[in-house]
Amino acid sequence: MFKTRMNADMALELFLASFEPLTGSENLNVEKCDGRVSAEDITAKTDVPHYRRAAMDGFAVKASDTLGGGSTSPVILKTGDSIGKGSCVRVHTGSAVPEGADAVVMVEDTQTHGGIVEVFTQVHPLKNVGEIGEDIRKGEMIIKRGKLLRPCDIGVIASLGIREIKVFRKPVVAIIPTGEELIPKGDALPGIGEVYETNGLMTELYIRKWGGVPGLHDIVTDNPGMIKSAIKANLDADMIIICGGTSVGKRDFVPGVVASLGKLVVHGVGISPGKPTALGIINGKPVICMPGYPVAGIVALYWFGKEALRKLGNMPREYETTVLAVLSEKIASRTGFKTFARVRLENGHAVPLATSGAGILSSVSKADGFVVIPENIEGYEKGETVEVKLID
Amino acid sequence: MFKTRMNADMALELFLASFEPLTGSENLNVEKCDGRVSAEDITAKTDVPHYRRAAMDGFAVKASDTLGGGSTSPVILKTGDSIGKGSCVRVHTGSAVPEGADAVVMVEDTQTHGGIVEVFTQVHPLKNVGEIGEDIRKGEMIIKRGKLLRPCDIGVIASLGIREIKVFRKPVVAIIPTGEELIPKGDALPGIGEVYETNGLMTELYIRKWGGVPGLHDIVTDNPGMIKSAIKANLDADMIIICGGTSVGKRDFVPGVVASLGKLVVHGVGISPGKPTALGIINGKPVICMPGYPVAGIVALYWFGKEALRKLGNMPREYETTVLAVLSEKIASRTGFKTFARVRLENGHAVPLATSGAGILSSVSKADGFVVIPENIEGYEKGETVEVKLID
Repeated sequence: MFKTRMNADMALELFLASFEPLTGSENLNVEKCDGRVSAEDITAKTDVPHYRRAAMDGFAVKASDTLGGGSTSPVILKTGDSIGKGSCVRVHTGSAVPEGADAVVMVEDTQTHGGIVEVFTQVHPLKNVGEIGEDIRKGEMIIKRGKLLRPCDIGVIASLGIREIKVFRKPVVAIIPTGEELIPKGDALPGIGEVYETNGLMTELYIRKWGGVPGLHDIVTDNPGMIKSAIKANLDADMIIICGGTSVGKRDFVPGVVASLGKLVVHGVGISPGKPTALGIINGKPVICMPGYPVAGIVALYWFGKEALRKLGNMPREYETTVLAVLSEKIASRTGFKTFARVRLENGHAVPLATSGAGILSSVSKADGFVVIPENIEGYEKGETVEVKLID
Repeated sequence: MFKTRMNADMALELFLASFEPLTGSENLNVEKCDGRVSAEDITAKTDVPHYRRAAMDGFAVKASDTLGGGSTSPVILKTGDSIGKGSCVRVHTGSAVPEGADAVVMVEDTQTHGGIVEVFTQVHPLKNVGEIGEDIRKGEMIIKRGKLLRPCDIGVIASLGIREIKVFRKPVVAIIPTGEELIPKGDALPGIGEVYETNGLMTELYIRKWGGVPGLHDIVTDNPGMIKSAIKANLDADMIIICGGTSVGKRDFVPGVVASLGKLVVHGVGISPGKPTALGIINGKPVICMPGYPVAGIVALYWFGKEALRKLGNMPREYETTVLAVLSEKIASRTGFKTFARVRLENGHAVPLATSGAGILSSVSKADGFVVIPENIEGYEKGETVEVKLID
């Protein structure tokens, strides 16, 4: 059917090696940077804290003044606004420890009578004092270029008073649904031989979820000239994903059009479902031709689209959400193909979904995840513990 | 220090039991529903496909007409627009199988000569024919109320021609940062005893990430009247989170104010860091008083805020992203406390971060996740395999 059927890992490697990550960046307010990737090393220009801070509510003291203090033998100090011999200053957690003081006595260890404080403990220097730079030291690199920023990272950046940082721009992905059987959502009821377009819609939502900026093109019918025009009109995007028309039938023009505009790197991949997937490069930009069968399309999108987006966007590899589960039934697979079996999770068991057709989208919706079966084995037996890759 | 220090699990259970999920919903276009929770059961009103569709490119035939066809003995059929005795119709994957035909012969098994097709195989009825309703059967429930919607679910909904669905509304969360030492981000450099507000900012970003609608209030100083006013002004929110002022110091007015406006359910929790956390209910709405120390605040937000948001928003429990790793060093914990130790992941090892202070925000930013140590053990030994809960 296909002249070549490339191993899935090899196809991915070859594809990823054929384009470069984006270098463009933008300056954004820190509060908008959750989920973005830093395009710069960020170094602290100040210490945090930039003053000695009290780590407890209590009294700032000269530690030597508390010598001999104990639960039955309080030391007596005067309260005031500054530290002198035998005096102390009320402090709160986070407030500055005044000059001359070198420790803080917890309020629980004291009793106050007007301007007099009884201290029922003895503290050593630096007790309950947060030193300058104890959180972040001036000159320290706090964020490395390429780090995926989480709210806690943004908190650290904001604690330095930095308001704006440079992040890599999000990859723009043009999505072109093709197929003469497709009608747009919201149109009148589909006639015989017509179906609503859903692959482009799903791709749009996944690209957005994974950190890209999707642009969903109108449906293009199975006409090589029109497919070519649509691709050419979207070459300002960073990646192009074309849904449908990737097989070897009379109406499958997409791989040929990609080859005519650039280079077809792969056509036919050892993933099941997803075999008709084609991968190309036009003007240095990655192009993914997703099979029109929705399950095959989603598998291709996971295997190639997510990784390509990650590379383009300089996103570090995240830990996948996987769950270990015991197979409730045997699952068979196609030797020579990396097989994506859909399973439902139920009380620690992975229940294979009976339907295996690549056209049965509802089987993905019923599934919690995929069990990915390597090429060289024929499936997994009932009772085996398998890793389930959750569907985003 | 606190009169009570409630066990972390018990505090969570008590807190969650003291308020109800939101019942409000909104109608949204399906393409806006990624990550939302369906507020209705959705039943298919049509079959998908609603016609018999070809599962392959090829020729629709009456199966009985192919009797005797084989690789060396082709059956000869005429091509046409409809099926009669001895004729066939060209079909593409997804197109309708015409009346009278009951099977599709793959194009690979044929040779065409003008209006004549040689069929080199014999097919049985239904071969390569997708039956009506093979993906979704009319009347089938495709989405249950309470399901968290993913792009693939939205694809299924859209394949039925449904344009709008009812989803639960997102919980609105008012966030009130308190503390006289705080200055807003972007202000001039902080003076001695002043720090930039970051807890409210981080809380805002986490609430948004977890599916809520955050509203960040201006900083309120440590004044019970002003704290009370700020809470009262935000009682139209579904949850209130107050950052800081939860301890038992002179400036810690927040729990008292919450008690005066409603009910303080918990004050003092066996989590470390995070002990001063207080939890209350005002007008039936959950109120979380987060400690001002940033690490303690984040731990309280994870343990109580995320779960409360999930309950309010009717969100199903998701699988946590956890990673198994081998401890590179011993980590100690406080018996009686559920301890959240920060670790960095490095080549399958969990490396504890040296700093353990609740005020050291940079230790969270340096961490990939938390190792959560139960109350009844004293820590984990070097070399033990631990579960690392990744920080969102």
